Amino acid sequence: MDLLEQIGRNAKLAEPILRNLDANSKNRILRRVAKELVDDTKAILAANEKDIKAGQEAGMSAGLIDRLQLTKERIEAMAEGLCQLADLDDPIGEVLGMKKRPNGLLIGQKRVPLGVVGIIYEARPNVTADAFGLCLKTGNVVILKGGSDALASNTAIVECIRKSLAGEQVNPDAIQLITATDRETTEAFMKLNQYVDVLIPRGGRGLIQAVVHNSTIPVIETGTGNCHIYVDEDADLEMATAIIINAKTQRVGVCNACESLLIHKKVLRDLLPVLGEKLGKYKVEIRGDEEVCKLLKDAVAATEEDWGKEYLDFTISIKTVPSVEAAIAHINRYNTKHSEAIITRDYDHAQKFLEEVDAAAVYVNASTRFTDGFEFGFGAEIGISTQKLHARGPMGLLALTTTKYIIYGNGQIRP
Amino acid sequence: MDLLEQIGRNAKLAEPILRNLDANSKNRILRRVAKELVDDTKAILAANEKDIKAGQEAGMSAGLIDRLQLTKERIEAMAEGLCQLADLDDPIGEVLGMKKRPNGLLIGQKRVPLGVVGIIYEARPNVTADAFGLCLKTGNVVILKGGSDALASNTAIVECIRKSLAGEQVNPDAIQLITATDRETTEAFMKLNQYVDVLIPRGGRGLIQAVVHNSTIPVIETGTGNCHIYVDEDADLEMATAIIINAKTQRVGVCNACESLLIHKKVLRDLLPVLGEKLGKYKVEIRGDEEVCKLLKDAVAATEEDWGKEYLDFTISIKTVPSVEAAIAHINRYNTKHSEAIITRDYDHAQKFLEEVDAAAVYVNASTRFTDGFEFGFGAEIGISTQKLHARGPMGLLALTTTKYIIYGNGQIRP
Repeated sequence: MDLLEQIGRNAKLAEPILRNLDANSKNRILRRVAKELVDDTKAILAANEKDIKAGQEAGMSAGLIDRLQLTKERIEAMAEGLCQLADLDDPIGEVLGMKKRPNGLLIGQKRVPLGVVGIIYEARPNVTADAFGLCLKTGNVVILKGGSDALASNTAIVECIRKSLAGEQVNPDAIQLITATDRETTEAFMKLNQYVDVLIPRGGRGLIQAVVHNSTIPVIETGTGNCHIYVDEDADLEMATAIIINAKTQRVGVCNACESLLIHKKVLRDLLPVLGEKLGKYKVEIRGDEEVCKLLKDAVAATEEDWGKEYLDFTISIKTVPSVEAAIAHINRYNTKHSEAIITRDYDHAQKFLEEVDAAAVYVNASTRFTDGFEFGFGAEIGISTQKLHARGPMGLLALTTTKYIIYGNGQIRP
Repeated sequence: MDLLEQIGRNAKLAEPILRNLDANSKNRILRRVAKELVDDTKAILAANEKDIKAGQEAGMSAGLIDRLQLTKERIEAMAEGLCQLADLDDPIGEVLGMKKRPNGLLIGQKRVPLGVVGIIYEARPNVTADAFGLCLKTGNVVILKGGSDALASNTAIVECIRKSLAGEQVNPDAIQLITATDRETTEAFMKLNQYVDVLIPRGGRGLIQAVVHNSTIPVIETGTGNCHIYVDEDADLEMATAIIINAKTQRVGVCNACESLLIHKKVLRDLLPVLGEKLGKYKVEIRGDEEVCKLLKDAVAATEEDWGKEYLDFTISIKTVPSVEAAIAHINRYNTKHSEAIITRDYDHAQKFLEEVDAAAVYVNASTRFTDGFEFGFGAEIGISTQKLHARGPMGLLALTTTKYIIYGNGQIRP
């Protein structure tokens, strides 16, 4: 039997066991895995060292090496993450909206696990423990396909988790790692509809697009963020400046950072000199339209391409707009449906912006950087969905669940 | 510009208009379209006559001709369906779970349209008006790709709807029909991610599987139903018989009809003779296991294939099981995750069945035939989802919506 077929069957055998685990058991397992990961630090670091060495020999960049690197502290952080999951409420089993129909049928929606979750990710070994924890907490079996550069690290982590599961008398196939690193296996995994209920890519744009375009399994797509801040004619300019600096510079490499600024022409002259100076302190490069370049001599002329760009860097595009309508139209044309903000004191403009901007999260008078599962109070985050089906915006544990209708009758037949 | 690109761009231009239509406007449009469809009966029937003639000349089966055929009454039913939609509550705009975070941000989820919905269906012209009505009610733009055998009928219906939209000063591109009938266009439509937010196939298994496997756009999958009824050792056998007869024979060609029966060995001798006689009256063919064939001389021996089969006909498979656990295991192995029922007076068995059977709808002491948007009280039905993402079970208007987070702040920045 081929490798994936075997993995799929193993997962299906584990599925009913995971689905029926009560919250106490799941939390006990999470805490045990946390402890055993720390106990196995030496073995995990030794395996990681092999990956690092191979990466260095292959000329991997310093940034990628850093993402691949594990340390005692990083293993402790992984363990801490699992303990935090154990402390969260279990979403499974809740019955929503149970109502009696006129014929006496009592119908409700019960929250249940998805079943088998596939996760495809890059060479970040910390995702291995994190993905397991999220799936276990929600009663799902997980099949992992990590980046081949992290194979030794992932294998060590998965072995440690499987050992803990066996110690708790739970089928270790609750987590399986696909160790084959060839392209054909990855593509076949994306078409394993018979065994896998949902596929989640975690990583950069290239990985996500490859999964979206090749998978026949339903995908939860996490996406890129070309996030805008629009400074309205009626904005508090001090607040605007503080929010822009925060959203642009607090962390530049993340999807909820601000990439593009729209400024109402009436406040351009008042805002831009102060803002330009503050952005200058952070060495933020400005790509501006004609009006902006006139006022800021360091600004570079923006091209059409700039309006659609997610820089993930100390760069921002700035455009002058004549109205809130023009700002909304620009955003809906160029955004990636992630996070958008208006800074205003005008009630109608605020409501209009909230109503008409099409994005996962739309803000009035706050930084786009809050689009995050922890900041939204979910206690965990799978990713930030920029698609519209199933989950949109920051995804907490609920995104790894589905519902089934349960119906209590007493002999009803359909007339 | 190619045809699909033009259709996609038109849809995007119509999208913000549809998104912002208030409920009164949408309901007025629905009622106007209903009236104009009836007014245009003559033209629509004339177009339909062309399709019917071409179908007959091409040797189309009587069943397919019947599905394709429109009559005055069927057009009135289409119009009536639109008026019923107008009477339903508008799901758009509701804000769910708005809560204040510790930093003062007020975060809620607002229900909004999906955007642009693509629908691929077979030669059933009534789906044209129905799909438009569901999409308009939920503020979505719709792009239709109907079966080529119904092209003249669909064109006439779509033209009538576009005329009504124009009469209401709404962009008629709220509905567009893809008139090209070649395979390449259909396949390109399934990859129009840039313009289409979700694709819904409506039709038989072949169509649905083709869309699931070829689409790169997220798909809402409606599926087949290999639905089981399990008669427990503690069942009220009279109730069991009534439910089985209803679920098997009330309408055989539908996905929520019962296809397979599991009977606890302790009640087999008491139930089977009576049940066999009643099923015989409906000329239901029985495919049974060894025990069943011993007791019912008309029964045919079931093969392994029978357990997984959706007959959609007057045929049923019957298997003897030793326990509720065996029944659950059999169902979870062979079912299509649609609708499953247990007939029992045993509290523990009822709860266990509800808990452990993996399906969109799980019943105690009621007919599987109730799995239906109207029977569940939604007032409308898009289809019955057997996938686990986004929507599971009967889908009402909510399945055509998504949410966006709206956040009211007063200057918050992320520390």
